[in-house]
Amino acid sequence: MSSPDQMFAAAAIKAFRQNLDRATKLFTNLTEDQLQIRIAPGKNRLFYLWGHLIAVNDTIFPLLGIGDPLYPEFEAIFIKSPDGAAQELPTPAELAAASKAIDEKLLAAFNGFTASQWLERHTAVSEEDFAKEPGRNRFAILLSRTSHLAYHLGQAILAPK
Amino acid sequence: MSSPDQMFAAAAIKAFRQNLDRATKLFTNLTEDQLQIRIAPGKNRLFYLWGHLIAVNDTIFPLLGIGDPLYPEFEAIFIKSPDGAAQELPTPAELAAASKAIDEKLLAAFNGFTASQWLERHTAVSEEDFAKEPGRNRFAILLSRTSHLAYHLGQAILAPK
Repeated sequence: MSSPDQMFAAAAIKAFRQNLDRATKLFTNLTEDQLQIRIAPGKNRLFYLWGHLIAVNDTIFPLLGIGDPLYPEFEAIFIKSPDGAAQELPTPAELAAASKAIDEKLLAAFNGFTASQWLERHTAVSEEDFAKEPGRNRFAILLSRTSHLAYHLGQAILAPK
Repeated sequence: MSSPDQMFAAAAIKAFRQNLDRATKLFTNLTEDQLQIRIAPGKNRLFYLWGHLIAVNDTIFPLLGIGDPLYPEFEAIFIKSPDGAAQELPTPAELAAASKAIDEKLLAAFNGFTASQWLERHTAVSEEDFAKEPGRNRFAILLSRTSHLAYHLGQAILAPK
């Protein structure tokens, strides 16, 4: 029997994974042509949105203090630049491989955290601020990244394919 | 100092509330004309999407076994029927009032749950199945409803306004 702490963490990891899985299924089933479709007129292409989700998930490693991003070059392309700005883009196959590597490493780390490790501060908050706001912990990052996935998944579904 | 259990629950309630607040802000700032805009060609109108989010949140009361829906008529209009099918619709002012009443009552219930109450089964799972799958608890509903809000919020943001 799991402790309540473990049950809470397991539920949140499952919610994150379910959104990841839906995103992976959606994007990896698209053709190269479909990946060039915009989610709405004048908005991001599906390819960019996919890269954005992967790049944001890759930032979770440094944010939780558990390592460097696996694909640090993605941040400039898919977070700091808008769609269409980057000169060199990864291929869809490279994105799929990056997604797989990042997701596996993230989930392994998540599954290894104890309850007290989930409640440690994330690296975007100082020790001083964290003492005042203990809610700014790793678990809050897991939840906000789950909402981030769901938010863009809703958009990707809308694209005319 | 809160216990780890309480910290986990508080973080998840906060994530739900943040998505609720973003939705409320977005929809209540739209004019009646803007609420008639479709989120994408051939897709739901913003008004329907707003009603859908409210109706789904209202189903949380019976799903958690903490009461009846406050607006039971919304289920037929915004969940069981597609956009355009219902003959009589609430006004935007009625939706705003419903949203406020549901959100306040939900958050009061959420804030009153102990950790073990969060981990009780939800009413869509039988006692027999819950014994085998204890992850089908109220906390999982909170997380899935948060993803549901974020998913449709991402869509609402895309609508041409």
